[in-house]
Amino acid sequence: MMVSVELGDGVVIHHPDLVNMYGCRIGARTKVGTFVEIQRNSSIGEDCKISSHSFVCEGVTIGDGVFIGHGVMFTNDRYPRAVNADGSQQTDKDWQVIPTNVGSRASIGSNATILAGITIGVDALVGAGAVVTRDVPDQAIVAGVPAVVVGWNEHVQTRRQLARSAP
Amino acid sequence: MMVSVELGDGVVIHHPDLVNMYGCRIGARTKVGTFVEIQRNSSIGEDCKISSHSFVCEGVTIGDGVFIGHGVMFTNDRYPRAVNADGSQQTDKDWQVIPTNVGSRASIGSNATILAGITIGVDALVGAGAVVTRDVPDQAIVAGVPAVVVGWNEHVQTRRQLARSAP
Amino acid sequence: MMVSVELGDGVVIHHPDLVNMYGCRIGARTKVGTFVEIQRNSSIGEDCKISSHSFVCEGVTIGDGVFIGHGVMFTNDRYPRAVNADGSQQTDKDWQVIPTNVGSRASIGSNATILAGITIGVDALVGAGAVVTRDVPDQAIVAGVPAVVVGWNEHVQTRRQLARSAP
Repeated sequence: MMVSVELGDGVVIHHPDLVNMYGCRIGARTKVGTFVEIQRNSSIGEDCKISSHSFVCEGVTIGDGVFIGHGVMFTNDRYPRAVNADGSQQTDKDWQVIPTNVGSRASIGSNATILAGITIGVDALVGAGAVVTRDVPDQAIVAGVPAVVVGWNEHVQTRRQLARSAP
Repeated sequence: MMVSVELGDGVVIHHPDLVNMYGCRIGARTKVGTFVEIQRNSSIGEDCKISSHSFVCEGVTIGDGVFIGHGVMFTNDRYPRAVNADGSQQTDKDWQVIPTNVGSRASIGSNATILAGITIGVDALVGAGAVVTRDVPDQAIVAGVPAVVVGWNEHVQTRRQLARSAP
Repeated sequence: MMVSVELGDGVVIHHPDLVNMYGCRIGARTKVGTFVEIQRNSSIGEDCKISSHSFVCEGVTIGDGVFIGHGVMFTNDRYPRAVNADGSQQTDKDWQVIPTNVGSRASIGSNATILAGITIGVDALVGAGAVVTRDVPDQAIVAGVPAVVVGWNEHVQTRRQLARSAP
């Protein structure tokens, strides 16, 4: 199902009947796997890869060249609830979306969980299965529950060397 | 796919063709997201929200007003196996469902995993990505792997104040 | 969707329209749940159970009688990326599949994440929600993030006793 999705040129959605995307923007050449849900008011950049079983919620902004692994879950509420204190069902008026940002060329490993309000830096790498509870600095490699910095992305050095050695 | 599902009044299933529900009961006004599987002999209360990519297995009983995040996995066997000790495939006769209970108004964060036989108390909150290996007391907030108590749900105070101040 | 899948006798796929399987081999009598993706160049043995929401990627070889829980994610790359150092999209030529092996009669709990290049031994048990970052010995029970050995599979003893007592 795809409803009111703004697609850039060359976007590849392998099985449009096995995704649930609505009211979102997908940048040029980005690839979207099966069993993916992407909610309204989210935005994904160009040349990204959104792998199967992942969920991108309202309020998430993803840069260019980002890799989202399989089964990655974004969130947009710190204390989600089905009902209000008086027992009535929550509606959009009863809570506020907390935005999350993912910097360009970042990679998020499979089954990772990203808490609401997080900024993941450019060129950062989130390990598979990590639960990200704090901002991730640019180029940092984080892993674990809660995720902590375990290294720095050497890919960036390579990219800088390439840039420097370009004629 | 929905087979032999007992639905209360006003249940909302966003994409009936993108869920797998059979032999279960869903209470009035509960909302069920996409890519959700709900097995036979499970029961979900009224005014719940079951988010995308979640799995509710046989033997799970969920109260009223419960929030189940995205990618939440319930389980009903401590040592699941495909085959018996003699190499033959396991059938329903070869294992016993261990029941799990979720109290009313509890919230379970995205990508959380709930081991078999757990009771999650009323008004409890399970953090995103947590692996719940022990019972969760009423109103407790738990997080981590394995999940431990990290706080108590203030929402409950609010609800009590509302009740007290009611005319 | 099933494309170029080699199926053994008696394979059960509950909802062929709600899986994404291509270029893979599934052994006789194995059962595959809903919302499962199984990629090309992966192989699953006989009498296995692949539960809902799981992802088996290229390069994964699974033995006979293996239980894969719900929401289990395999991976085949240590540092996955969407783009190369020069900003161009990655293609199959830009990375190498790192193979993963799961021994016969092993069980992998729900929401577990298996890093690339891992060998999971025969009769091993991976706890629900575990992140497996190192090889798992035969018959070991592992759990946690990262997964560590917490016990040994008694099931094996039973099987040996059965074998010894056979006429």
